Amino acid sequence: MKFVAEIDIMPHKELLDPQGKAVSHNLKNINIQEVSDVRIGKHITLTLEAETEEAAREIVDNACRKLLANLIMETFTFELSAQE
Amino acid sequence: MKFVAEIDIMPHKELLDPQGKAVSHNLKNINIQEVSDVRIGKHITLTLEAETEEAAREIVDNACRKLLANLIMETFTFELSAQE
Repeated sequence: MKFVAEIDIMPHKELLDPQGKAVSHNLKNINIQEVSDVRIGKHITLTLEAETEEAAREIVDNACRKLLANLIMETFTFELSAQE
Repeated sequence: MKFVAEIDIMPHKELLDPQGKAVSHNLKNINIQEVSDVRIGKHITLTLEAETEEAAREIVDNACRKLLANLIMETFTFELSAQE
């Protein structure tokens, strides 16, 4: 079965997000005043083959832990959907 | 009212994704063979104040079009949730 995983990898909440601060500052420069906080991370989509949803979930979790996310600095969440 | 926008900014599907290709290759190196395609983009969360959900939607759309996304190379989607 074919699956697609939509993964969000974000910096830990406690960590400073200099990129986010810069964007927040730039938003004010283009007169978008209503935004109080900006956090920037990665969105990764994986297309994969697996026997079951559970097997797919394990593959994606493994890929995130071993390569895609730096667990010291980042957290990851993902949604999985089966493809026809 | 306070809102949080979860924004995904991805390269256009037709564009080559060299970063994605590199990650795909590295996944195979750590013996994760089941992944056939990897696409990498940005996930941005915005916290903002707005009178209504519609006003919030307009602010986020405007922020994406003017600053966050490069509309020539990227597409953006977002979800909005009101915060208590």
